[in-house]
Amino acid sequence: MVETRLKVRLKLILAYDGRPFRGWQSQAEGGGVQDHLERAFARICGGRVVVQGAGRTDAGVHARAQVAHADVPREEMAVRAWPLALNAHLPPEIRVMRAQRVPDDFHAQFDARGKVYVYRIWNAPAFHPLEIGRAWHVPVSLDVAVLRAGAKLLAGRHDFARFAANRGQPPGSTVRTLHEVRITRRGPLITLRVAGDGFLYRMVRLLTGSLVRCAQGKAHLDWLRALLAGTAPKTHFLAPAEGLYLERVLY
Amino acid sequence: MVETRLKVRLKLILAYDGRPFRGWQSQAEGGGVQDHLERAFARICGGRVVVQGAGRTDAGVHARAQVAHADVPREEMAVRAWPLALNAHLPPEIRVMRAQRVPDDFHAQFDARGKVYVYRIWNAPAFHPLEIGRAWHVPVSLDVAVLRAGAKLLAGRHDFARFAANRGQPPGSTVRTLHEVRITRRGPLITLRVAGDGFLYRMVRLLTGSLVRCAQGKAHLDWLRALLAGTAPKTHFLAPAEGLYLERVLY
Repeated sequence: MVETRLKVRLKLILAYDGRPFRGWQSQAEGGGVQDHLERAFARICGGRVVVQGAGRTDAGVHARAQVAHADVPREEMAVRAWPLALNAHLPPEIRVMRAQRVPDDFHAQFDARGKVYVYRIWNAPAFHPLEIGRAWHVPVSLDVAVLRAGAKLLAGRHDFARFAANRGQPPGSTVRTLHEVRITRRGPLITLRVAGDGFLYRMVRLLTGSLVRCAQGKAHLDWLRALLAGTAPKTHFLAPAEGLYLERVLY
Repeated sequence: MVETRLKVRLKLILAYDGRPFRGWQSQAEGGGVQDHLERAFARICGGRVVVQGAGRTDAGVHARAQVAHADVPREEMAVRAWPLALNAHLPPEIRVMRAQRVPDDFHAQFDARGKVYVYRIWNAPAFHPLEIGRAWHVPVSLDVAVLRAGAKLLAGRHDFARFAANRGQPPGSTVRTLHEVRITRRGPLITLRVAGDGFLYRMVRLLTGSLVRCAQGKAHLDWLRALLAGTAPKTHFLAPAEGLYLERVLY
């Protein structure tokens, strides 16, 4: 316990380009974003520092403001010096954008009240070169009115079990509330913004893939209704990772 | 003349990520964007097709809507089929976004009435990973009020000789009109939008580099006034290529 009081807890705001990494979580071979952060801390502090993220992101998924916490020796350096120190030991595709001191009981994962994700779709025959790795290229024209109608169905409190890649979750444990499901179109760029109190494994990508299926005219909105009602089997239309951005974690 | 009538002139709207290429113009070793386009045409048509761009872009400079023209055999394919055909033979970092038939006397360079460029600056201590290769990272805080005041000075009709990397141009030939020089700030992202009737070699990058010099407090706006008046030697503060985008060509 004495040791704990010699440490301070840092809250880190992180941005990363998901392409070079095997997702957020630690990997045996060390290719997770978490691994890179823990190695950077170890180089500065000498000992092991555990980095706890607000949640995992899959390989290829980007983050504009992932949140993590870590306990560091109090005497190491001023809180505001941490981003620069860590960034000096991180690949340029991961940056600590901000650091702040938080109470010792702050927990990046358990205290999160919700998250905001953005999914970007490039909907034109030719894939814009500056969107490679940053959006899903859907060459056939999507019906934005259908996307909006589908988004309206998904908003609110539902059992999203049919939009989860997890298996064997107890009934009722897959109920989530989406406060916002908003579709924006600017030329060929369609953006889906989803804010919710929690997300199941691959839920945003499965929601997006299924919405796009409807907007291509290959499925009806009644299918979305059946997925929400649990009367249709799980959807397997998974939008690719590179279009997804963890935009914000809400506390 | 008979041959000409068997051809049709295409106007192409092109987007590219400038990073993998040695600029727009044909290179001896074939690494220019123009070279890639001419090779794609050659594969489709069998013979040589000259591609004429609206203007050059330097190595690393991006384009959202570069314009070019080319004459192709009338019988080859329908005009709307060209983008797909060309894109099949181009690297993904170059895309033909649209093609349209234009009169035989349309000239991508000589008919251009002006151009719009955008320059993006990421102004924060940590460089956002998703901005690598797409913006200039300026870690020290810039005074946006100074950028705006400088932009106001640059707008209008001036002799921009001191903002040109070209040498030995006759007096008076370096007069240009900038219809718009606009600074926008959204969080750490500062955007400079410049619309004008023509641009000298590296002019936008020299304008940006010099404005930033003032906004860092390292030079005074009087220096900008002296550059415009021709009483100061040429500026050599060249903003890097990766922040620059050819946004539009005006006809």
